[in-house]
Amino acid sequence: MTVIRDSSSITVDDGTVTVRGWVQDTRNMGGISFIVLRDRHGTVQLTLPKKKVDPDMFATITKLPRESVISVTGEVKASNQTELGLEIIPSSYVLESEAGTPLPMGVIDKVNVEMDTRLNNRFMDLRKPEIRAVFELKAMMVELIEEAVRENGFIQVYTPKINAAGAEGGAELFKIQYFDKPAFLAQSPQLYKQILMSTGLDRVFELGPAFRAEQSNTNRLVTEFISFDGEMSWIENEEEVMRMIETIIDHVLTGLKERGKKQLEILGKEITVPARPY
Amino acid sequence: MTVIRDSSSITVDDGTVTVRGWVQDTRNMGGISFIVLRDRHGTVQLTLPKKKVDPDMFATITKLPRESVISVTGEVKASNQTELGLEIIPSSYVLESEAGTPLPMGVIDKVNVEMDTRLNNRFMDLRKPEIRAVFELKAMMVELIEEAVRENGFIQVYTPKINAAGAEGGAELFKIQYFDKPAFLAQSPQLYKQILMSTGLDRVFELGPAFRAEQSNTNRLVTEFISFDGEMSWIENEEEVMRMIETIIDHVLTGLKERGKKQLEILGKEITVPARPY
Repeated sequence: MTVIRDSSSITVDDGTVTVRGWVQDTRNMGGISFIVLRDRHGTVQLTLPKKKVDPDMFATITKLPRESVISVTGEVKASNQTELGLEIIPSSYVLESEAGTPLPMGVIDKVNVEMDTRLNNRFMDLRKPEIRAVFELKAMMVELIEEAVRENGFIQVYTPKINAAGAEGGAELFKIQYFDKPAFLAQSPQLYKQILMSTGLDRVFELGPAFRAEQSNTNRLVTEFISFDGEMSWIENEEEVMRMIETIIDHVLTGLKERGKKQLEILGKEITVPARPY
Repeated sequence: MTVIRDSSSITVDDGTVTVRGWVQDTRNMGGISFIVLRDRHGTVQLTLPKKKVDPDMFATITKLPRESVISVTGEVKASNQTELGLEIIPSSYVLESEAGTPLPMGVIDKVNVEMDTRLNNRFMDLRKPEIRAVFELKAMMVELIEEAVRENGFIQVYTPKINAAGAEGGAELFKIQYFDKPAFLAQSPQLYKQILMSTGLDRVFELGPAFRAEQSNTNRLVTEFISFDGEMSWIENEEEVMRMIETIIDHVLTGLKERGKKQLEILGKEITVPARPY
């Protein structure tokens, strides 16, 4: 028996498999029931012909509220009725967690819900493929930035976020009490990066949070944001910096286009990689 | 003319090159002077036969205080007197920054200086190959952890560091004023990771700072530390978690042994990768 982590990778050759996920939808047609089971990677159809599966299982599994979490073991069969070209005929299942009813919001419902409802039920909001896709693309982007800068000799560093003073003028700082001394949350790793240049570690980068105590009426707050920050020594002119930034951006866009194909499709977005030099 | 970023990669075939770095040491022998120039990757010897190089350059460059920063252009010549098997005969140089004298501490001196002196001059302390090696190994370790977890389907996330409450009991929190509300620095991404499990992003990891307001008399403070934190769904038992941790640690140790060879040699350390299962 194979445990499947990625429903989109199941094949008919797998034979008996265990799949695990969320009951996205159930259709009870009398003599046959269908369940769409969703995992991180996609959905797979569970097909339950009433006469061929265990009656107890049939009675209970087909009544589960949407978004209940189950592990299902069954036989993979070819099917020309499903997107994956296969379906699973369950022989047993484990109910990991039964969803409450009614759900505070739907996952695949076309009906829009208020932003407040979404944020108050963020754990469900992220079950929507288009929201998950954003998280996945973001993680890819971090990986791609790292690839580009490491390839170019940048060393990853982690600089202190609790600072004795601000690094730049102008930005408002969050103050904290560091035992008997006042301290501030870092609004930028600027000074640390510059000092690192004088150590001879001539190219460094950091990926981490930065904090600015600025009120804002947009949903792009700077109070806490993830900052990619790089510093390089020995540059002759600003053109060199621009070329490096181009190299990084080009690698990120090209990479997202290739590796994020599925996610971009879900979002209905396309990436056009600009010709270099920008 | 080739600009060399990595002194250890110079070859005689490079012809005329520009190298850039710190004057580590100067020996003036009368008719000939030698300068050891250090960059991030190692050192290269500049050889100045008095009669063969520009007299003005000879007079000034050989008098530069140690740790001055220079860019030097010259011809690469084979030499059996140096570790690299080559030396550079400078034809011109640019003084980027002249070091003050006396230096607050040496970089290659065998004499130990007090910890306070080292910390007060941390930019110089990091010029020591054995201190730089620690930074380099740390960056490699981050890369290796990421490789191992990404390979195993973990998605990188960044969770908020400014929290409305603590995530675990017991840990002391740093309090900050978040505009008109009190808030706390995150001592762990625990709750966020767990909620992410319920979104269906079934394996996540974070690499970032965590904060605990605990006084300590050791040099291993937890007030601010970089935490690798992972969470995985669908585990059958603790053995599965142990195996995953083994996979990560094994990849990190094996990788450091291979990629960190030079750094481990500088530190005089060896890595023994334990047989699995641990």
